[in-house]
Amino acid sequence: MQARPPTMNDVAATASVGLKTVSRFVNGATNIDPVLAARIALAIEALDYRHNLAAASIRPGRSSKLIGLVISDLANPYYSSLARSIERVCSEHGYLLMSMSCDEDTERHQLLIDRLIAQRVDGLIVVPPRDDPNAWADGARWRIPLVVVDRPVTAPGIHTILADNAGGTEAATAELVRQGAARVAFIGDSLKLYTMRERLAGYRRIIEHDDLRLSARLTFTGAHTADQASDIVLSLLEKNLADAIFAANNRSTIGALRAFARAGHRLPLIGFDDFEAAPLLNPAVSVVAQDVAEMGRVAAETVLAAAQGLAPLVETHVLPTRLVLRGSEAKEISGTEWLE
Amino acid sequence: MQARPPTMNDVAATASVGLKTVSRFVNGATNIDPVLAARIALAIEALDYRHNLAAASIRPGRSSKLIGLVISDLANPYYSSLARSIERVCSEHGYLLMSMSCDEDTERHQLLIDRLIAQRVDGLIVVPPRDDPNAWADGARWRIPLVVVDRPVTAPGIHTILADNAGGTEAATAELVRQGAARVAFIGDSLKLYTMRERLAGYRRIIEHDDLRLSARLTFTGAHTADQASDIVLSLLEKNLADAIFAANNRSTIGALRAFARAGHRLPLIGFDDFEAAPLLNPAVSVVAQDVAEMGRVAAETVLAAAQGLAPLVETHVLPTRLVLRGSEAKEISGTEWLE
Repeated sequence: MQARPPTMNDVAATASVGLKTVSRFVNGATNIDPVLAARIALAIEALDYRHNLAAASIRPGRSSKLIGLVISDLANPYYSSLARSIERVCSEHGYLLMSMSCDEDTERHQLLIDRLIAQRVDGLIVVPPRDDPNAWADGARWRIPLVVVDRPVTAPGIHTILADNAGGTEAATAELVRQGAARVAFIGDSLKLYTMRERLAGYRRIIEHDDLRLSARLTFTGAHTADQASDIVLSLLEKNLADAIFAANNRSTIGALRAFARAGHRLPLIGFDDFEAAPLLNPAVSVVAQDVAEMGRVAAETVLAAAQGLAPLVETHVLPTRLVLRGSEAKEISGTEWLE
Repeated sequence: MQARPPTMNDVAATASVGLKTVSRFVNGATNIDPVLAARIALAIEALDYRHNLAAASIRPGRSSKLIGLVISDLANPYYSSLARSIERVCSEHGYLLMSMSCDEDTERHQLLIDRLIAQRVDGLIVVPPRDDPNAWADGARWRIPLVVVDRPVTAPGIHTILADNAGGTEAATAELVRQGAARVAFIGDSLKLYTMRERLAGYRRIIEHDDLRLSARLTFTGAHTADQASDIVLSLLEKNLADAIFAANNRSTIGALRAFARAGHRLPLIGFDDFEAAPLLNPAVSVVAQDVAEMGRVAAETVLAAAQGLAPLVETHVLPTRLVLRGSEAKEISGTEWLE
């Protein structure tokens, strides 16, 4: 039921008013016959007509100067840092950012998109929801300037900002192998997530198990929370099934660290995504760091350009990741000499 | 220039229309003479009249089902956890939350408040800005159901949710003294912040220095960032001026930990506000924990009740804090036995 979006012509026909008058109305002219103005307003509401903001905002004063952001979870430091970076760039350009989180709920995600469009934001930056990343985008992309971040969608014509998930994981896994690990476990979230599929692909560029049973015993993609990751790592430690841990997101890294603390011993570890306390732990935690500030900057500048009708070329940016080695990748740790 | 807010009578007079017609218009009746409707719409815009949402939303369908949240910094885990908790309760009640951060900028804060009201949110939850916490509230409190959290305002009649900052700090400082510290340093942010004034007051209930010079050498309220806190703690360590550190917010705690790592030795430490990695550090970091989930729940339920015209009694909730001792408060640490 992907209906054609209503046009200004439809509004004119419904209101029995000339196209020029409708155009003057939606562009903010105030000297319109109030009878006609009321008819146009009712037609716009009845049709759910959305004025093309990208074109309209070229006229000064017609823009809401608002950008909407829909992410998965405001309390996840990866997303809150991303939101902060986007907010900063919006602010530099005189725009405000409204942030909302959908908690990976497809229905709620659609509701947030609709609500932000109804609030007349000038553009949307969206992390697609895990279980159905594509459905919302077909509906949204003709209604509003749109940028997706972190995970792509299949709908064409959408600006997309991604990190090099596979490359970052490949480098981390290679380092763990270089440090002597034969059995590197992969602990991550659902493979419904693009980022997890990419990270697992990067891991498999290095770890190619001929033994399928071994591969199954070392690959875990059911860790949505830190506690779930912790349980998996505890079980690996108890059964001595792994030589090293690749934690495929910051939830899994925290979980692995909790498991080490509970079990009383550790394994070499690298996690995907940096976190503030990582350098303060003992050993300091090595990570694949995304350039979240840059991702936010590119996303914000792209959506602002589109909202201003500058129509940048639609493209997919893949930002490089960085392997930050701090000590936890090693088998032996250098001790606790900084502690008095 | 605190003008009387425009009333429905003012709209009726300006539009030369009866009060009943204005009332029917603002309550969504559609069978109004379009000429009158257009005149009313123009008068509402000219007067910047804001329909009393608390009363209006009793009628089903008239509510935007949106709540606005203005905090200091989305990327600070204290505020992002608070936002998450508020969002969850709003969601349970069928409301969506729009979160924005003002970065302690008074002008930006006012802009966010105005913008959220213009977006017709049903209610606002606000952390007042540091430098001028009161000015915005006089203007906002008659326009919209309002709850302030974390820091109070002087304007009367506003629901207020606070933590027991002084009591929590008093307990933490007493514990550091009990552990043998004579010179407990207080590291925090500006005393323009209500929370900092309260925490310093709690500290001073325990630490009463007769020697003013000593007091000045141990009280630091210029640490807005973790790096500024780190520099202060490094300098204390170098000059051996303190026996223990009370870090008055999570920025200062991270800063103290960075200083310990850089200096190669530590002091007994308790921080205000818990953070995810605190139990994973070595020694695990002791904190004064706020019940952020409960604070968010009370704030959300209060603003939703007010938005639905249930008019709860205006009151100030002070939520208790909890001293969580994990090891960092001690002079001697029990070692690193969990490390293999």
